[in-house]
Amino acid sequence: MVRVEGPIRVRPGGPISGSDFLQLRPGDAPAKGLTTWLTDGLRAAVAAGRLTTGTRLPPTRLLAAELDVSRGVVVDAYQRLIDEGLAAARTGAGTTIIARPQVRDTPSDRRRSLDTLRLPLPPADGIDLDLSPGVPDLSAFPRTAWLRAERAVLDEITAADLGYGDPGGTPRLRAELAGWLARTRGVRAEPDDVIVVNGVAQALALLGQTLRTRRIAVEDPGSRGARDQLAHWGVRPEPVPVDAEGLVVGALTQDAAVLTPAHQFPTGVVLGPARRRALLSWAAEGRLIIEDDYDAEHRYDRAPVAALQGSAPDHVAYAGSVSKSLAPGMRLGWLIAPRRMQPELLAAKHDSDLGNPALPQLVLARLLATGDYERHLRTVRTRQRRRRDALLGALARHLPRARVMGVAAGLHLLIMMAGDEPDIALAQRAAAAGVLVHPLSWHRMTPGPPGLILGYAANPPDRLAEAARRLGQVMGP
Amino acid sequence: MVRVEGPIRVRPGGPISGSDFLQLRPGDAPAKGLTTWLTDGLRAAVAAGRLTTGTRLPPTRLLAAELDVSRGVVVDAYQRLIDEGLAAARTGAGTTIIARPQVRDTPSDRRRSLDTLRLPLPPADGIDLDLSPGVPDLSAFPRTAWLRAERAVLDEITAADLGYGDPGGTPRLRAELAGWLARTRGVRAEPDDVIVVNGVAQALALLGQTLRTRRIAVEDPGSRGARDQLAHWGVRPEPVPVDAEGLVVGALTQDAAVLTPAHQFPTGVVLGPARRRALLSWAAEGRLIIEDDYDAEHRYDRAPVAALQGSAPDHVAYAGSVSKSLAPGMRLGWLIAPRRMQPELLAAKHDSDLGNPALPQLVLARLLATGDYERHLRTVRTRQRRRRDALLGALARHLPRARVMGVAAGLHLLIMMAGDEPDIALAQRAAAAGVLVHPLSWHRMTPGPPGLILGYAANPPDRLAEAARRLGQVMGP
Repeated sequence: MVRVEGPIRVRPGGPISGSDFLQLRPGDAPAKGLTTWLTDGLRAAVAAGRLTTGTRLPPTRLLAAELDVSRGVVVDAYQRLIDEGLAAARTGAGTTIIARPQVRDTPSDRRRSLDTLRLPLPPADGIDLDLSPGVPDLSAFPRTAWLRAERAVLDEITAADLGYGDPGGTPRLRAELAGWLARTRGVRAEPDDVIVVNGVAQALALLGQTLRTRRIAVEDPGSRGARDQLAHWGVRPEPVPVDAEGLVVGALTQDAAVLTPAHQFPTGVVLGPARRRALLSWAAEGRLIIEDDYDAEHRYDRAPVAALQGSAPDHVAYAGSVSKSLAPGMRLGWLIAPRRMQPELLAAKHDSDLGNPALPQLVLARLLATGDYERHLRTVRTRQRRRRDALLGALARHLPRARVMGVAAGLHLLIMMAGDEPDIALAQRAAAAGVLVHPLSWHRMTPGPPGLILGYAANPPDRLAEAARRLGQVMGP
Repeated sequence: MVRVEGPIRVRPGGPISGSDFLQLRPGDAPAKGLTTWLTDGLRAAVAAGRLTTGTRLPPTRLLAAELDVSRGVVVDAYQRLIDEGLAAARTGAGTTIIARPQVRDTPSDRRRSLDTLRLPLPPADGIDLDLSPGVPDLSAFPRTAWLRAERAVLDEITAADLGYGDPGGTPRLRAELAGWLARTRGVRAEPDDVIVVNGVAQALALLGQTLRTRRIAVEDPGSRGARDQLAHWGVRPEPVPVDAEGLVVGALTQDAAVLTPAHQFPTGVVLGPARRRALLSWAAEGRLIIEDDYDAEHRYDRAPVAALQGSAPDHVAYAGSVSKSLAPGMRLGWLIAPRRMQPELLAAKHDSDLGNPALPQLVLARLLATGDYERHLRTVRTRQRRRRDALLGALARHLPRARVMGVAAGLHLLIMMAGDEPDIALAQRAAAAGVLVHPLSWHRMTPGPPGLILGYAANPPDRLAEAARRLGQVMGP
């Protein structure tokens, strides 16, 4: 297997240089031929998000010299990427990465993503316990309340509600969200400060398009999806380590940082009070915090820590969504940014899609106004706590040596493994036993101890206990 | 006022050069001072979409030499743009345009847009007859059928339907659309060829992000919204004239063209058969047609001409939406592009918002499957024809000298005025009489004879007759 090693330094705008990019080990090459060897290495870098869309590959001559192969090998490898639709040759502009090997996050693609990490998974029907993180219990979707709210909305809707609306969202939803987020998360915002978006993914896309800085700090380990989303828009995510207190604020050298302070993804740690203060001081010097508040409403043991935004509305762009409380398929979220950023973000939203669909916005506004949304959250919170407790109990029985982290909130927990076996191999053995979990290294930018991320929201207690039992079987105590 | 003249040649990626950009007439300057003069010229170019977001302004030294002013004048003008939030200075990258002066197309912004055209409108409550084009009869929204379909969808929905879906759309809607568009528009597509998008606006945004060429032909007169949408993504719209046969195909010098062949916006002409053949030959030589099929389903007097896409699926990117048939607030449309473009478009859609919301997709799929969508279209078609006929009759009475165009289809018609009074002044007088219409010149890139665009779908026959009566009063016969 070709190894891609060392720090990848991609310079947005210009072509990357050979030495910055791939440190291939020619010793691995001969078995499959030089072109295949190089193509695989390039494809792997693209798949892992280290070579992002829009990046220009080094001139063939330069990379050939660097790798000590003939230029034809590089030309052929680039051509294969072009044939696969991953790259394009533009006259005068060299070869540019235009796509990743696959679109991710769809059910079938989840398997393909694992494939790119060289996880030879059993056939999909071999997986009967999907513990992927980030997915709520979709069977709990409040069908009745939703339909009741939609009927009420359709009864009272005006022609203006259905026309080309404000790109920032319908006034009713913006007002309800401002109130809800103030009550539950301590967010300080007027209704006009709220931009309704297609989920946190679009919030990041809009920020990526409008950020003044191109270098941005991301948590490591951290959300791979968030990283890829930003990278697509030409922002260069740079890893900053996370420890037991959350993001290591002292290590920040960038002017903006994306983080998940209430329940760090994937470790589950809460940003400690000292770190929080340090981060706010850091931001006060003209910097930007992007607060991804993806699952803070799912807190089990005590009240969730308030959003950072409430302490520094001029320095925090706050993003959240209903993906974890209703369903990811809703594609409905919010972005509250410092006011100076608002005109540009609204223009970007307008020029992306003119604004979110009206009906689901009005329905959510009504669910918030009637209290149905809060009632739903209480129901799923109780259910999720039971599931978490079931998984915790079963892990204590079947994997007593694993250290469990991030259990106070959210829809997933992290287990750190006792040995030093790579977590990709562990996830692979779990998959062979029918249990789909994320290896922690999938969400790392720099190597670290092995861990597994276990989502518990989407399976009932007995299934979670069975998953823990199988994990114990394939991994030993 | 500073005039911006001559072709604007912006080179994406690099900074633009002074001479390519503004041909300011220094003679206009002294009255208001050089800095204001230059700032106004820059702002006007940004407002008109001729300087697009992402464009780097020329180095101050270079532009100063070009205009024969001191460098301080240019530095100050750039700083004013930065203060206004239109530009940003990035270290080592000069000054870059980051936003347009205002967000357009929201109800309140419609007035502001007119303001930028120097139309001093009466207060909004002075308008009681809104004949803006492009808005269907929103009171006709099929509330009952929609709610019935949504109930059925929620009854049979699975957890997978509500999860992170395929960014191209839910399989059921893609299949229904492929069938529907084949039957009604002659479109040739497999379900997987369909990308579900947030309306034609997002189709254009995705195309703008992924097009290989930066120069793109647009119809003149043509949709101002489509033009602005493309310009935001760094594509340079170049005007190609429209005559009684539609787009003047012989005048194309670009490698891609956006057009509305079934019912040209705003003239309403149908692309003639000879032009159609010429366009297909032009496209066959490796070029791209972007077919905006925005209102072809609203055809009154004979069957609509088939979509170009059916004749050349490898050379046409076809876009449509439910904005004219259900409501613009649905933000639900489709894009069917040549297969070689598909991976990149899907990646762009994924990285914009991960995909459209699931529920409205499933509801539309059901409305298509049950025939409710077709029944709704038949109902509104009948109603719209009656409205069109009422407006036509009243115009013949009250404005007998105006030439009426584009009546065979769509939701609007165009009247060409007999005199040579500028249409902006005419629209202004109409507004003073409470009637909101679009001046044709608003949708022109190069000057031409005066005309007014009258949308007739959203008002009942008696109101349309009243509008024509008032137009006759303020404009004479």
